[in-house]
Amino acid sequence: MKISARNVLSGTVKAVRKGTTTAHVTVELPGGQVVTAAITNESVDDLGLAPGKAAHVVVKSSDVMIAVD
Amino acid sequence: MKISARNVLSGTVKAVRKGTTTAHVTVELPGGQVVTAAITNESVDDLGLAPGKAAHVVVKSSDVMIAVD
Amino acid sequence: MKISARNVLSGTVKAVRKGTTTAHVTVELPGGQVVTAAITNESVDDLGLAPGKAAHVVVKSSDVMIAVD
Amino acid sequence: MKISARNVLSGTVKAVRKGTTTAHVTVELPGGQVVTAAITNESVDDLGLAPGKAAHVVVKSSDVMIAVD
Amino acid sequence: MKISARNVLSGTVKAVRKGTTTAHVTVELPGGQVVTAAITNESVDDLGLAPGKAAHVVVKSSDVMIAVD
Amino acid sequence: MKISARNVLSGTVKAVRKGTTTAHVTVELPGGQVVTAAITNESVDDLGLAPGKAAHVVVKSSDVMIAVD
Repeated sequence: MKISARNVLSGTVKAVRKGTTTAHVTVELPGGQVVTAAITNESVDDLGLAPGKAAHVVVKSSDVMIAVD
Repeated sequence: MKISARNVLSGTVKAVRKGTTTAHVTVELPGGQVVTAAITNESVDDLGLAPGKAAHVVVKSSDVMIAVD
Repeated sequence: MKISARNVLSGTVKAVRKGTTTAHVTVELPGGQVVTAAITNESVDDLGLAPGKAAHVVVKSSDVMIAVD
Repeated sequence: MKISARNVLSGTVKAVRKGTTTAHVTVELPGGQVVTAAITNESVDDLGLAPGKAAHVVVKSSDVMIAVD
Repeated sequence: MKISARNVLSGTVKAVRKGTTTAHVTVELPGGQVVTAAITNESVDDLGLAPGKAAHVVVKSSDVMIAVD
Repeated sequence: MKISARNVLSGTVKAVRKGTTTAHVTVELPGGQVVTAAITNESVDDLGLAPGKAAHVVVKSSDVMIAVD
């Protein structure tokens, strides 16, 4: 499946923390930076997410902001 | 200013392309991956965004999806 | 590629209308309802979107609201 | 109330599952496809959402992605 | 129509600026603060938005961030 | 830090309610209207959010909808 979201960054799952309905998944990118995703617990199970697994971080360009110091 | 968005990734502006109201800005992360943001033309001017400028990519964790092959 | 977004609805592209940077794509679902997506012009070209093409509408559950009359 | 979101799809509530603060509500569309919304528990109570109730799924066009196989 | 979005703030349209596909609409709130919405040109026409018109600003709680100095 | 989000509204934290992973924070604006944000529990702790604290509500213009009666 190819998706219209402009940002598809590859990385590795670092940690998965489930809440009652929402889970927080962190993915480490090649440069060492870590991205956190809030997804549903079902998605974690469906995708078989666990530390060490290869995964892509997917973000629509309209959901990305830019900041400067 | 400190913000609640979980993802604040530092990088360098690679390119800025303005439309009529919306601009597409690409930022290169340390690992070489590139993130595209769709922001308003006013924001580009307010933040003085131009190729080579240090900038942060800011994304709410609820706007991040995970995908696996 | 399998994605964490809970909503992946199959349908058929009805129309594509490009702006300067953003395009509006409408997809018809099996029940006849039509969904509009605002995506980048590059995505339209990358995905080869054109009327009649089979496509999925993808939406994160946290981006879906419910309303009642 | 009329809203700027381009996507207002009518359907019927199928299930409501509450977490600590966030609830997952599924709505069935005429074509049989099911949409999941993550909304607050307060919204579920305010809107009186329960299986069998008529409801609209509301999504901004900028929150909709398109994917192809 | 009643909607699950937690934030429905009433105000008055201050200005409408249309792009090729996307329009920027500013709404003034009672306290004098101004909110900018990026919506489609069709929505502007459908809702008859023009300076001076009473309007609500609608935002999902999951799309709101908090920042501190 | 200066951010590309068009909407940065100042107010005062009214209440903080934590769930398992997600917290609901309400902020009162000068005109008396209240905005609810769904952010992570970590963000609440990182930003030291508590009733009475000065805070900004930050929203991307593409996440703002307009409604009329």
